[in-house]
Amino acid sequence: MKKTLYLIGIGPGGPEYLTMQAIEALRTIDCFFMLEKDGRGKDELIAARQAILARYLPDANPRVATRASPPRRMDADGYREGVQQWHARKRELIAEMIEQELAAGERGAFLIWGDPSLYDQTVSLVNELVAASPQRLELVVIPGITAVQALTAAHRIPVNRIGESITITTGRAIAQQDPAAIHNSVVMLDNNAEFQHFTGQDLDLYWGAYLGCDDQALAAGPIGAVCDELLERRARLREEHGWIMDTYLLRRRR
Amino acid sequence: MKKTLYLIGIGPGGPEYLTMQAIEALRTIDCFFMLEKDGRGKDELIAARQAILARYLPDANPRVATRASPPRRMDADGYREGVQQWHARKRELIAEMIEQELAAGERGAFLIWGDPSLYDQTVSLVNELVAASPQRLELVVIPGITAVQALTAAHRIPVNRIGESITITTGRAIAQQDPAAIHNSVVMLDNNAEFQHFTGQDLDLYWGAYLGCDDQALAAGPIGAVCDELLERRARLREEHGWIMDTYLLRRRR
Ligand SMILES: C[S@@+](CC[C@H](N)C(=O)[O-])C[C@H]1O[C@@H](n2cnc3c(N)ncnc32)[C@H](O)[C@@H]1O
Ligand SMILES: C[S@@+](CC[C@H](N)C(=O)[O-])C[C@H]1O[C@@H](n2cnc3c(N)ncnc32)[C@H](O)[C@@H]1O
Repeated sequence: MKKTLYLIGIGPGGPEYLTMQAIEALRTIDCFFMLEKDGRGKDELIAARQAILARYLPDANPRVATRASPPRRMDADGYREGVQQWHARKRELIAEMIEQELAAGERGAFLIWGDPSLYDQTVSLVNELVAASPQRLELVVIPGITAVQALTAAHRIPVNRIGESITITTGRAIAQQDPAAIHNSVVMLDNNAEFQHFTGQDLDLYWGAYLGCDDQALAAGPIGAVCDELLERRARLREEHGWIMDTYLLRRRR
Repeated sequence: MKKTLYLIGIGPGGPEYLTMQAIEALRTIDCFFMLEKDGRGKDELIAARQAILARYLPDANPRVATRASPPRRMDADGYREGVQQWHARKRELIAEMIEQELAAGERGAFLIWGDPSLYDQTVSLVNELVAASPQRLELVVIPGITAVQALTAAHRIPVNRIGESITITTGRAIAQQDPAAIHNSVVMLDNNAEFQHFTGQDLDLYWGAYLGCDDQALAAGPIGAVCDELLERRARLREEHGWIMDTYLLRRRR
């Protein structure tokens, strides 16, 4: 009797972003696993997950197992290595939770912000655990709406114009790119508002923060025209909330 | 009293892919607009939309307005121009439907396969209609699960590894790319199985057809090892079904 771990995409904000498939999966879960992070956005992320359980499992009293998420050590050599060490600790913690919290045949689940495939390594970590004991553990992934889709829906734009390709990338990666080579790029995981370095380009910016949440904030326009005001606004929002979570599209004008 | 047009993402297959937000939107719609295409997949696409209305609006008897989708003329000079003429006719047809089928203050909706932002130009066409009469027409976009997310969920893989970027592109575009420059690309709208030209590369292929549907088919492995068998299987499936709808990820091995 295998244990099954579900990674359920919950979308970028409120409980209305869950799919029917996700809601049906929720109802079969024996134990919800939560990893609590310190720092920015912590309370909001916990509240979002609790709102989901309260809305879709109002009569059930599901088991919830909570652990502190391993802190990300910043002293490792190199970015990728630092992330890998952090992932190794996270993987061990997940293995421990599966061991301690699930009986044979039971189903555990993580509620994953957005879609489990996009810039979230839980799926890879659990795959490694499955590879190590395929007779004992199974993984099921349920897709969710990404922040990218919340961005384009809020702006009522396509993510790619006729025949065009799209790149989804990070702040770290776009900062190293030749600005002239940016055509249609969505940027995530950008703490430093890297768009400010592209004001000389013929690019339109479509920006969104707290997408799908009550405080959703939007801005759009030619990068040169909107950049300064947006930098101020972004700093103000970050201060008000104590954290910011934003995504933007840079699109070359035709 | 404005008219409102909703573009509601329905995900890549069965009704279980709809989000709660989409289901709640369905319940407020006065008239559903359907454009019927000739040819491959026609019946399945209509059946999918009817299954959604039957499941989520079982007691209502919503108005449904159906038109024949304008055929895509293949004689125009150049690909982009051909598409643009086709879009212009589609836009006129949508304008006509809004005019004829909705009273002031009413809400119409298109059910859009996958997410409305991804390789679907309805959102751009409706934006042009809104720009022409902003006092009379409003657009609301509701995100849906894309075929890309159905692919990665079915394979239980992330769409990008640590820090990595992802490109989403078309068969037409990938065919023109330098094979050595492909790192992590999702290919859609590929009638010609362009992956067959990359067998010399150190790439893994993750492929899916009819994703999220009853007949979902999957394949994965090093491109050189899986290509021939997949080409045969793809041809067989296409013949059995009369059409095929597939998406794949090409990922350079590390
Ligand atoms: C670790 S990634 C997770 C992405 C998530 N799996 C998804 O599918 O959207 C976190 C990044 O996603 C983006 N993001 C997630 N939720 C967002 C939201 N509600 N509004 C704006 N950006 C968001 C931000 O760029 C943030 O840095
Ligand atoms: C016109 S695009 C529309 C994409 C859609 N808006 C989405 O979000 O997935 C059609 C292409 O999407 C992909 N596609 C859509 N549904 C699919 C499915 N169920 N299985 C595999 N591929 C699919 C195929 O590559 C197909 O050529």
